[in-house]
Amino acid sequence: MTHAPLPDPVRLVVDCMGGDHGPSVTLPACRAFLDKHPAAELILVGQPEALKAAVAWPRCRIVAASEVVTMDDPIEVALRRKRDSSMRVAIQQLKAGRDGEAPLAHACVSAGNTGALMAVAKVLLKTVAGIDRPAIAAVMPNANGGFTTVLDLGANVDSSAENLLQFAVLGSALVSAVDGIEEPSVGLLNIGEEAIKGSETIKQAGELLRAAGGAGQLNFYGNVEGNDIFKGTTDIVVCDGFVGNVMLKASEGLAGMMGGFIKAEFTRDWLSMLGGLLAKPVLNRFKRRVDHRRFNGAALLGLRGLVFKSHGSADAFAFENALARAYDAARNRLLDRVHERIVATLQASTGAVAADAGDKAAPAAQAA
Amino acid sequence: MTHAPLPDPVRLVVDCMGGDHGPSVTLPACRAFLDKHPAAELILVGQPEALKAAVAWPRCRIVAASEVVTMDDPIEVALRRKRDSSMRVAIQQLKAGRDGEAPLAHACVSAGNTGALMAVAKVLLKTVAGIDRPAIAAVMPNANGGFTTVLDLGANVDSSAENLLQFAVLGSALVSAVDGIEEPSVGLLNIGEEAIKGSETIKQAGELLRAAGGAGQLNFYGNVEGNDIFKGTTDIVVCDGFVGNVMLKASEGLAGMMGGFIKAEFTRDWLSMLGGLLAKPVLNRFKRRVDHRRFNGAALLGLRGLVFKSHGSADAFAFENALARAYDAARNRLLDRVHERIVATLQASTGAVAADAGDKAAPAAQAA
Repeated sequence: MTHAPLPDPVRLVVDCMGGDHGPSVTLPACRAFLDKHPAAELILVGQPEALKAAVAWPRCRIVAASEVVTMDDPIEVALRRKRDSSMRVAIQQLKAGRDGEAPLAHACVSAGNTGALMAVAKVLLKTVAGIDRPAIAAVMPNANGGFTTVLDLGANVDSSAENLLQFAVLGSALVSAVDGIEEPSVGLLNIGEEAIKGSETIKQAGELLRAAGGAGQLNFYGNVEGNDIFKGTTDIVVCDGFVGNVMLKASEGLAGMMGGFIKAEFTRDWLSMLGGLLAKPVLNRFKRRVDHRRFNGAALLGLRGLVFKSHGSADAFAFENALARAYDAARNRLLDRVHERIVATLQASTGAVAADAGDKAAPAAQAA
Repeated sequence: MTHAPLPDPVRLVVDCMGGDHGPSVTLPACRAFLDKHPAAELILVGQPEALKAAVAWPRCRIVAASEVVTMDDPIEVALRRKRDSSMRVAIQQLKAGRDGEAPLAHACVSAGNTGALMAVAKVLLKTVAGIDRPAIAAVMPNANGGFTTVLDLGANVDSSAENLLQFAVLGSALVSAVDGIEEPSVGLLNIGEEAIKGSETIKQAGELLRAAGGAGQLNFYGNVEGNDIFKGTTDIVVCDGFVGNVMLKASEGLAGMMGGFIKAEFTRDWLSMLGGLLAKPVLNRFKRRVDHRRFNGAALLGLRGLVFKSHGSADAFAFENALARAYDAARNRLLDRVHERIVATLQASTGAVAADAGDKAAPAAQAA
């Protein structure tokens, strides 16, 4: 498969009102993004008054939305009550473009609340054929100096073995599009020898993944454990959304605690502060390595449209990174890649199942 | 309930051959432990040749065992093949003491492989009445400068709501015994608003825990998320063993990666090394704060005997901490506390269910 980048312009639609800070963060990020991506175009969605700074920007159009989904709004409010929210209008723009009713936008970015964004995106865009449930994928830094893409991070609880196989397909498409690794390796998150190796679901998922790997449709590595995410053992780690969400939040908590400890120790007394001053360039390099703002931009995968979710607390630097990530995914035809991989893997595995059934049916028919 | 400490001597039985390093680590740890605990006694189990350095030690007895369960031995080998292993003999000593067939040992410590240790302990000791499945509990440092006790860390996969309630009971008994917090708070590990709040099992567990909390049998805080473990939101966090194991290993991996990054940055060039030299006392204080050796010693809870598991790679300092933890648990009557809490919580909740059924049956009978 060749994947020549999309022809310019690649156009993103941005929910400018979402997140903890709204336009005070999203607008400077959009401006910086436009400056760095001279062939990109943006559709900015939000309250016109709040977006008026952007009226005269080049390669940029404003679409009005009168309401805002807050970070605490229940999913129901985002779905049914606030029908003119910036989040909903942004997804609507993406959909209308796809269906030929508006200028095409190639991806949507929002820092709004995840549950609401996923629900609105699912209802408006629908899932891709062959994918039962969308998943949330994000990258985490690893000891190799690279990133590990992990999914699902909380779109689902109680994933089936088939769901986990689908997550592997979606993740492989994402990493090939965004990170340029054509055949990324996939690990199945499991536990060690401390207990029987995983639940029934995990064992079945392992079998499906091994079969897909054996048929050359996925680069399946095998089981991995929690520490492998940060070792960088595989490019992709697939897991149930409950497990992924707990792991993600525990990691954020641990990194925050360790950062707090470092800060506390370096400000404990004047001698420590002097040490901190002298070590500042080194500490800054360390901070940069684990700065989660650099990895901002989770992909909502499996939908008939590309939606990227920025952390709600993102600053302009972080939000710009989410825009860049969405841009790369769109430009490198993530949706086409998802489609191709579904055809190759899922339909092949379904086909194999059908062929198996046929094989078994035949002797039975003869016997009859 | 009053819990006067056990009268001296409190006696531990130690599997001296277990772990990556065997007696070269366990013996110095035992010696240091004896020096610091002048009223404690030890039973050292292992190959007599390997333990001969301890022959003349005070308050110390050697029990011979000819075999060793390796870190890679499958559970079956530990259970059925190596019947004279130091691990098995150590647990056997604990059981024989309990049953009045040998001098009483109050707890057992091993650095042997977790799966094997749990299996042997379960088969020989059996579970406490009212507990369906044992669980593994360990502490993790939190931002309050204290510790959060988390269980289950991998003894089970697919825990039921009742299992999770039992873990809360076991964890409460442990923390009250070892950390001296009489009514420790319990959080149920769950995920955020990104998805429907948790699986059916988690929702049911929440109801059971809320009921036990409402009846004053547990100090139930409510749901917590992954980051709350390191924030120290609650004294105890209960979760399924699969989730707990992934979280634990991911945390170990992340902490290792961050430590590696700090080291790499401080040794990058001579200026960085100079900064590292000047900041060394500060960095050492930081390292001490997150030094997992200080937290070594996981409890295998729910068994009719106290078994503590040291990390396989523990050094003498870490193994000594596991001994101290087991000693504290035994001295503060952890088994009695487990029993009391089971009577109070689990039998009360079973009683409540029975009473409910009675209430509902009555009007139906009247109607009939």
